[in-house]
Amino acid sequence: MILERENSQFELTDELIEQVELCVENKDDKELKRVLNEFHFADVAEILDELDLEDSVYVIKLLDSEITSEILMELDEDIREKVLKNLSAKEIAEEVEELDTDDAADMIAELPENRQAEVISKIEDEEHRDEITELLAYEEDTAGSLMAKELVKVYETWTVGGCLRRIRGQAKEVTRVHSIYVVNKEEKLIGRLSLKDLIVAKSDQKISDISKDTVDSVNVNDDLEVVAKVMAKYDLEAIPVVDDNQTLLGRITIDDIVDVLKEEAEKDYQMAAGLTGDVEADDSILELTRARLPWLVLGLFGGLGSVFIMKGYENIMETVPSLFFYTPLIAAMAGNVGVQSSAIIVQGIANDNVKGSMGSRLLKEVGLSLINGFVLALLVILFGFIIGQDTTESLAIAVSMMSVIVVAALVGTFVPIILDKRGIDPAIATGPFITTSNDILGIYLFFVLSGLIIGF
Amino acid sequence: MILERENSQFELTDELIEQVELCVENKDDKELKRVLNEFHFADVAEILDELDLEDSVYVIKLLDSEITSEILMELDEDIREKVLKNLSAKEIAEEVEELDTDDAADMIAELPENRQAEVISKIEDEEHRDEITELLAYEEDTAGSLMAKELVKVYETWTVGGCLRRIRGQAKEVTRVHSIYVVNKEEKLIGRLSLKDLIVAKSDQKISDISKDTVDSVNVNDDLEVVAKVMAKYDLEAIPVVDDNQTLLGRITIDDIVDVLKEEAEKDYQMAAGLTGDVEADDSILELTRARLPWLVLGLFGGLGSVFIMKGYENIMETVPSLFFYTPLIAAMAGNVGVQSSAIIVQGIANDNVKGSMGSRLLKEVGLSLINGFVLALLVILFGFIIGQDTTESLAIAVSMMSVIVVAALVGTFVPIILDKRGIDPAIATGPFITTSNDILGIYLFFVLSGLIIGF
Repeated sequence: MILERENSQFELTDELIEQVELCVENKDDKELKRVLNEFHFADVAEILDELDLEDSVYVIKLLDSEITSEILMELDEDIREKVLKNLSAKEIAEEVEELDTDDAADMIAELPENRQAEVISKIEDEEHRDEITELLAYEEDTAGSLMAKELVKVYETWTVGGCLRRIRGQAKEVTRVHSIYVVNKEEKLIGRLSLKDLIVAKSDQKISDISKDTVDSVNVNDDLEVVAKVMAKYDLEAIPVVDDNQTLLGRITIDDIVDVLKEEAEKDYQMAAGLTGDVEADDSILELTRARLPWLVLGLFGGLGSVFIMKGYENIMETVPSLFFYTPLIAAMAGNVGVQSSAIIVQGIANDNVKGSMGSRLLKEVGLSLINGFVLALLVILFGFIIGQDTTESLAIAVSMMSVIVVAALVGTFVPIILDKRGIDPAIATGPFITTSNDILGIYLFFVLSGLIIGF
Repeated sequence: MILERENSQFELTDELIEQVELCVENKDDKELKRVLNEFHFADVAEILDELDLEDSVYVIKLLDSEITSEILMELDEDIREKVLKNLSAKEIAEEVEELDTDDAADMIAELPENRQAEVISKIEDEEHRDEITELLAYEEDTAGSLMAKELVKVYETWTVGGCLRRIRGQAKEVTRVHSIYVVNKEEKLIGRLSLKDLIVAKSDQKISDISKDTVDSVNVNDDLEVVAKVMAKYDLEAIPVVDDNQTLLGRITIDDIVDVLKEEAEKDYQMAAGLTGDVEADDSILELTRARLPWLVLGLFGGLGSVFIMKGYENIMETVPSLFFYTPLIAAMAGNVGVQSSAIIVQGIANDNVKGSMGSRLLKEVGLSLINGFVLALLVILFGFIIGQDTTESLAIAVSMMSVIVVAALVGTFVPIILDKRGIDPAIATGPFITTSNDILGIYLFFVLSGLIIGF
């Protein structure tokens, strides 16, 4: 029954959940501990995500805070919030004591404000408490908000042998030693070395002789996106965080950046799909409605706008009815082209590969959309020919569509660029926003241009 | 002029590029080396990305292969391909000698098939050559294709002291030591320990006494998505790769997984935006057309489908013209709702949080879209009232739209689920595919239902 985690993937089965539920029901603490201790805390968190709140709280109160603190951090955010509500400030403080400062600060930051101070005051380890308080002060989405205070630091004047001895002390508190940071006597970051360098070196060498004096670092106020970019570009697994005076404050590890990257990607994807806020398939109907309705209402207004425009052309319904049959097609093409253009530009901006002048970009986009538009226009003329449509009408429709495509591509390209120049996240210009504005603009242009060609 | 990389972000300036170009033009090798050696290889790659091909090749041939091999790996893929075309098989082999096995195999895999064997035969280090050949044999997107052969391995029977001595040898070849893998005499992976554990332990302790005997590993044939999921879930920075017999074959590090995650996210985003293939803003017009036109043609066919449907209702143009004004709105709503639903489900599937039965999901989606649809329908009725539209018509439009929204949500939800169950990437069901099919379906339903209500 018990799944072996080593060498085989953990699988969350109904049997396992039932087994845990049964243990909780029977208050069979010994068996419960035996079962759960087989698993990694991330797996236990997955189990708890499936249990009733009451049962989850029971498990959290039962197991050692050394493990439960890690389990809590891995829980689904909504569930963690509910579980923490059922713990006393003292109990939360005990969990916090076990966590690294970065996770500890995150856990406290999620609490309601009135509880935060209470929990902090119950943390017994004074240094830990001060460090957490420091971290809580940094603004969201800055390097400071993600860093941990735990790191291994040595002074440039130490010897390798002395260093190894002292590191034995420091390293016990640090889960993973990536780099050892070298500071001068003013605590300024001046270099780094790896454990490997230390092991390979001779015992009486001085740190300053074996340390690398180029060391990447980020400022404590840098945006997380910048941190992620630097770490990905230089393949770093940890990066030290300094203040404006180059004083070493903390470090950020790559596993936290992986989470940031995943969240960013999901957010962009959702924004492009017309979802506001961070929703998941298993959220409540209310939360999902809140994420979905706003963009739909925007889309509705766009659609009502086109109703208005078309109503204005009601008088030509008898003479050229076919124009009206093509409006969904025109709207769709304008929307699709706009989304394509904006997606490429938004990604290009994110990856810093939108180069060259606005003029050359304009030319490129016009050229590109002319090619696409021309091929599509030919297909429309062919279609018109097959269904025996009036040739002038077909031509008018094809040419207008082509123009709509060019304009839609330009809107899709330049709206994100302009937003970005003004310091607004260009990602909001993808998806429904571009689709909707291009829908209206496209239909308007379509009627105006067709009118010029057919003559109405 | 020279930018300091330490403590300040590298910035690619026009002046810098000009300076490098000038050095190349004057064949001032000494100055060129001086300038470029100031920078990290990832920065030099950014500079080369901007140079003419000829100049880039000049720089690559000038600098030491120890550096240029890394620069090459950081170059834009298209540019790397062109540069490698200008190097002899011998020169490429020299670059490959400097790279870790995983990067070496990647570089060779990108070469045209006829050159691959030639380059491999020119690699002087026999072990390196054999390891690269082994890596090239693994299928794309498997753990084997991403892993490196470089790792630090110790036998369970060694002592800590002996281990440290031997590691000094192995570690020189391994850029970063994350974990030390413990194997038994059959080379089977049986545990791991960190350098930290080793440093903290006493010299005469046996490895088997201090090593952790639970060790996460992946199978060499596991999909990269699985590897990424395991590493992110358990916050691993490296994971050993084993074969079916648990024999240790290699290891995958988190920096490579970061790249995989970024690529996956960009691919999904592009797929949702209706782009095929991996394109960038700075690709050629031809490449961009190839990525954009296919989905646009699909959209066009969808649009032509709705032309057909509407043509079938031409006879009611005189009696209820307003229906035709609403078709772009209906198509937009059907498309938007479909994209929202599919995006949530596709992400849910990727994150393994789509739980519960199909029946409960059906109920939830119907409930959700009824709520959204109801609010939107009210707005449509209000709009009709304001513009003085016939009440029956407004009602018919509102009710039909609501039904279209429900159906569109169901299509958006269940198409990805069904694709996933059949082993097809559900991400293809987002974006243009869902939009287009929902457009046609929506307009068809709209006319049928309005007809039933109004009576035509």
